[in-house]
Amino acid sequence: MKSARPLLAFGAHPDDVEFGCGGIIAREAEAGRAVHFIICSHGEAGTNGTPAQRTAESKKAARVLGATCEFLKLDGDAHLEVRAAHALKLAGIIRRLRPAVVLAPSLEQNQHPDHYRLGQLVRDASRLARYGGPAHAIDQLFFYAVTPEAEPAGVPPVLIDLSAPGVVATWTAAMEAHASQLRTRNYVELQLARARVHGLRAGLEYAQPLFPNDPLVFDSLAAVTRSARRF
Amino acid sequence: MKSARPLLAFGAHPDDVEFGCGGIIAREAEAGRAVHFIICSHGEAGTNGTPAQRTAESKKAARVLGATCEFLKLDGDAHLEVRAAHALKLAGIIRRLRPAVVLAPSLEQNQHPDHYRLGQLVRDASRLARYGGPAHAIDQLFFYAVTPEAEPAGVPPVLIDLSAPGVVATWTAAMEAHASQLRTRNYVELQLARARVHGLRAGLEYAQPLFPNDPLVFDSLAAVTRSARRF
Amino acid sequence: MKSARPLLAFGAHPDDVEFGCGGIIAREAEAGRAVHFIICSHGEAGTNGTPAQRTAESKKAARVLGATCEFLKLDGDAHLEVRAAHALKLAGIIRRLRPAVVLAPSLEQNQHPDHYRLGQLVRDASRLARYGGPAHAIDQLFFYAVTPEAEPAGVPPVLIDLSAPGVVATWTAAMEAHASQLRTRNYVELQLARARVHGLRAGLEYAQPLFPNDPLVFDSLAAVTRSARRF
Amino acid sequence: MKSARPLLAFGAHPDDVEFGCGGIIAREAEAGRAVHFIICSHGEAGTNGTPAQRTAESKKAARVLGATCEFLKLDGDAHLEVRAAHALKLAGIIRRLRPAVVLAPSLEQNQHPDHYRLGQLVRDASRLARYGGPAHAIDQLFFYAVTPEAEPAGVPPVLIDLSAPGVVATWTAAMEAHASQLRTRNYVELQLARARVHGLRAGLEYAQPLFPNDPLVFDSLAAVTRSARRF
Amino acid sequence: MKSARPLLAFGAHPDDVEFGCGGIIAREAEAGRAVHFIICSHGEAGTNGTPAQRTAESKKAARVLGATCEFLKLDGDAHLEVRAAHALKLAGIIRRLRPAVVLAPSLEQNQHPDHYRLGQLVRDASRLARYGGPAHAIDQLFFYAVTPEAEPAGVPPVLIDLSAPGVVATWTAAMEAHASQLRTRNYVELQLARARVHGLRAGLEYAQPLFPNDPLVFDSLAAVTRSARRF
Amino acid sequence: MKSARPLLAFGAHPDDVEFGCGGIIAREAEAGRAVHFIICSHGEAGTNGTPAQRTAESKKAARVLGATCEFLKLDGDAHLEVRAAHALKLAGIIRRLRPAVVLAPSLEQNQHPDHYRLGQLVRDASRLARYGGPAHAIDQLFFYAVTPEAEPAGVPPVLIDLSAPGVVATWTAAMEAHASQLRTRNYVELQLARARVHGLRAGLEYAQPLFPNDPLVFDSLAAVTRSARRF
Repeated sequence: MKSARPLLAFGAHPDDVEFGCGGIIAREAEAGRAVHFIICSHGEAGTNGTPAQRTAESKKAARVLGATCEFLKLDGDAHLEVRAAHALKLAGIIRRLRPAVVLAPSLEQNQHPDHYRLGQLVRDASRLARYGGPAHAIDQLFFYAVTPEAEPAGVPPVLIDLSAPGVVATWTAAMEAHASQLRTRNYVELQLARARVHGLRAGLEYAQPLFPNDPLVFDSLAAVTRSARRF
Repeated sequence: MKSARPLLAFGAHPDDVEFGCGGIIAREAEAGRAVHFIICSHGEAGTNGTPAQRTAESKKAARVLGATCEFLKLDGDAHLEVRAAHALKLAGIIRRLRPAVVLAPSLEQNQHPDHYRLGQLVRDASRLARYGGPAHAIDQLFFYAVTPEAEPAGVPPVLIDLSAPGVVATWTAAMEAHASQLRTRNYVELQLARARVHGLRAGLEYAQPLFPNDPLVFDSLAAVTRSARRF
Repeated sequence: MKSARPLLAFGAHPDDVEFGCGGIIAREAEAGRAVHFIICSHGEAGTNGTPAQRTAESKKAARVLGATCEFLKLDGDAHLEVRAAHALKLAGIIRRLRPAVVLAPSLEQNQHPDHYRLGQLVRDASRLARYGGPAHAIDQLFFYAVTPEAEPAGVPPVLIDLSAPGVVATWTAAMEAHASQLRTRNYVELQLARARVHGLRAGLEYAQPLFPNDPLVFDSLAAVTRSARRF
Repeated sequence: MKSARPLLAFGAHPDDVEFGCGGIIAREAEAGRAVHFIICSHGEAGTNGTPAQRTAESKKAARVLGATCEFLKLDGDAHLEVRAAHALKLAGIIRRLRPAVVLAPSLEQNQHPDHYRLGQLVRDASRLARYGGPAHAIDQLFFYAVTPEAEPAGVPPVLIDLSAPGVVATWTAAMEAHASQLRTRNYVELQLARARVHGLRAGLEYAQPLFPNDPLVFDSLAAVTRSARRF
Repeated sequence: MKSARPLLAFGAHPDDVEFGCGGIIAREAEAGRAVHFIICSHGEAGTNGTPAQRTAESKKAARVLGATCEFLKLDGDAHLEVRAAHALKLAGIIRRLRPAVVLAPSLEQNQHPDHYRLGQLVRDASRLARYGGPAHAIDQLFFYAVTPEAEPAGVPPVLIDLSAPGVVATWTAAMEAHASQLRTRNYVELQLARARVHGLRAGLEYAQPLFPNDPLVFDSLAAVTRSARRF
Repeated sequence: MKSARPLLAFGAHPDDVEFGCGGIIAREAEAGRAVHFIICSHGEAGTNGTPAQRTAESKKAARVLGATCEFLKLDGDAHLEVRAAHALKLAGIIRRLRPAVVLAPSLEQNQHPDHYRLGQLVRDASRLARYGGPAHAIDQLFFYAVTPEAEPAGVPPVLIDLSAPGVVATWTAAMEAHASQLRTRNYVELQLARARVHGLRAGLEYAQPLFPNDPLVFDSLAAVTRSARRF
């Protein structure tokens, strides 16, 4: 049975969550957490793949990862704007689904503009959902980085260990479900190489980084004494 | 019975650990973790208190917190320098005591020079202890801030909740053990006000911040889903 | 008689100015400076208080501080957007009122979105008011921080000493005028603890920080030789 | 008669103060403030000029500016190290001379190593002078930038207006007193162009920047309402 | 004959390109590169000059520099907003003109809001032009700084040497073509002083800085071994 | 025949240059540039390998890359300190060898202390070599990152394309020459994964980053128009 406190991951395009934090999703779902994706376009401005193909790929990838997904209409692929109405709409989703953890694309601006704008909207929505009613305060908002240059500079990230058996295989299968996007570029290899670098830094086979928006609160240091950084 | 994986806290002066992270020490010791202090001077250059008084105050404060302490001779109060021999000496202590977590003063340079220099030495020592033999890789190095301006800018900290009954009272008693230092300044009130501000930001009564030197590694997000930030 | 060169403070919600820089307002008004607030919503999206209550609280608080206030219609609470038309409207207010000093919420983005967006609008407005006619160049734009996480990182602020008799009492009364906002949270205590920490750092009873947008220009260093930082 | 609260300026080489903040020195001395230079080498490792020539040039430049100067032996030109003994020696000078304002080379590391190391030593000395006895707490430490790349990035500086009649002429004469250093490079023109750029930004003929180490503390905003930034 | 791979420079107002990177334009055009300007307003909100005058000045300045120019209607002077439609329109221009290098105003927000917003739009457009069809990937996007405070902090820029005979004279003539803007301010002198400071830092007569948006890619270090920094 | 303007690379340990920038060395040597290594310890404090073994491995690796190497005695492995005498000794080497380009470990402090301290010493030495006689001004100092966390944050690097046939094979052979260091860790795989990530970001097979210490100076933009960044 899935946990009552779900993880909610937002993506601007059908493959953003899979490429940016799919290994973590695989790990969390396998550990029994309910995971739900909100995908804010059908990738209709991309070079490859029709909206129908990309929608199908997204659903398949979510199924592979053990997550559910839904599509949300905002401004459309390559057209996303930072509008108050969007933030309030996302806040409404947070109020309704009451997630413990929310994941969103990072705020670094030198990436696809839909990515960082969605990150801004989710950050604002997470705050707005705390006011008025029915209010919901999430536990933590983390940012993920779809591409290497989207990783925030100068902040030690939280690393999630992906070394458990099957996690990377599941993640790889989810990325490969986005077949239309893999015709011309080595996106899967890029993400696996990134996860290998992050993992090797910490003495792990593979790891993916998350970037916390707010302080991490702990009852004691017992929760945080499993680093194994070696180089 | 105390945990086999101790916490090791370094201070440049007899009261640095108590003022900078004493609430966290109280919390960890109460939770059953062995805590040991390495104090690198007797405060002999301070305005108030003789070295003998300050040594006694330090021992009393450690006892109040449930920790043990020892004094280490480096260059003396106000004379600390960043020497390779010091880093290697501290690495030797880490090799011997094999702590899980190490605490040291932050690296921000606009504070007492002994503070940030000790922070640099402990950071280097934690790395050097991983090489040669007998090697010991700690789980995590955290920095604490003795004063507000020593908090690193722009990095969301780890907050440890000090709201459990008795924690703040124990911490306050430990700070007040440094009676010689409280004649002219409101250091205790300053630290309690800081902990109140950090706590209120997160919906807690009191909290103290720590600043991780390296990525925090987790098996899953289950460990980090207890933030309750409200404002 | 009030000074001919007024201070103009912008707030996104009825209580932002009071919580973020109310002590400074009390100090300036008491010193004889005309202070005027532009409040850009009636707090209609908040958890507590009706727009009518909040409007009345705002007027009372301004009166307590010795300031005047008016409400400006932009997009409404939780709906503020960065529109060129808003910046030009604010520039029009600056052209009309010709303030010497302007205060606005800080630009840090991890706070209520109305706060940092209003900060951006006021910054742009202060610049736009210098072009075309009737042009007005303000002396200085300062940002205030409504909450601790809104303080810009890594920049030494300007601190205004609030230790003069009556200043903190007046400020506290102004915060308490926002009674509807104090039912569930210790906002007043949070702000007093912050001002205590800022003050103690500088050897003062209480102080509030401001963050300059531009270089501070002085005829000589005589103006800036009253720091008394002690810790 | 000179003010009882002197300005103390530290330089690593005989011409650092003149090139980095000589216009400000001219302005302060003319306004009646006692100014004293501590020069920490005779420039003996430079390309041009003998130690004797450079010492004479320094004395002449100080005289032109209306300041007094003395030479302090630390490690010698190009040999300066960050030693605790040096910081304590500089603290001793601060205890003795009891300056209100201290000026030192900036901490940016991509400049001559003697510059940023002296900056570190003076920063530490200013703090150490507050402890033990006879203690002296200065009002403010400012950093100056000998060359453009030594200006700290991202911090709005304090600008001192050099537009009053005679100030730039006096400063220029003081720079030209270092004749041995002007054989091969346009240092004077470089500094005047810098001051022109800083001034024009603020609507002034000429200005030089200073970078505060700590918060600036004011009784009210009346002291800081003379910015006139225009572009 | 002009190069087949043109340089495309975007400006928010008729004189932005000339003041911010006109020396570089003069150098590139003289070296045989085709240069084209896209000017996104007629300066109709400025203090001086009618739209007709400013259009004529712009055309004259482009001619002096050896460039061509066209005007693009977005939101008008002082009204520019960050709209997805604008980014897509600019991406369309990039798809059509297929430039090798694109120049845009920097992203620093403490400048005229039209400047940094246009910089954001051009950055997003350069990325969006790579997707869909007909796709065009530019070689490099550089930012230029219209005023000193618009230079990004903390990043070593690319400097283009303007010391070749005639380059500064051509640039000066192009700035002076904007006669309506020079009635009240020394903009030309400001820019020449800036270029002198940047040049003198590198041992050159004059230089202007550019700030790369992405990594610079080289086949070998042979391309980058002509620095001559001296101070 | 080798170029008359050599590349000089400094390493703290026998394998630092090979792991941190060995691909670039392979590329430059193959392109005909003389490359020389200065290695500042024999790795005598490491976990694996005797000084004799490591010296032999270093010589073999340099030979594989087409470089020459020499060992320099400073303080020994894990003992390096920032001493003025060291910087002056390194400046003497620069004066003697007159390199065009110098490579040194990066200044990021969260790595082996010998690395960043050597980086500081080389930076200072490159500057000190410009003064006195016989002076030598290098064209450019670049920093390399031995490990991922040593990459400076927030600065777009210079990327050198390693996609030419044979370059990665030569580099791999040079890393594998350090056989004693490869018993327990996947250092070679880590570096190849890093180079793959850097390359894929720019549309290249493999690339390594360098971080410039100073502005890059170019005669025109023709030199910098070969970026091909794609994601």
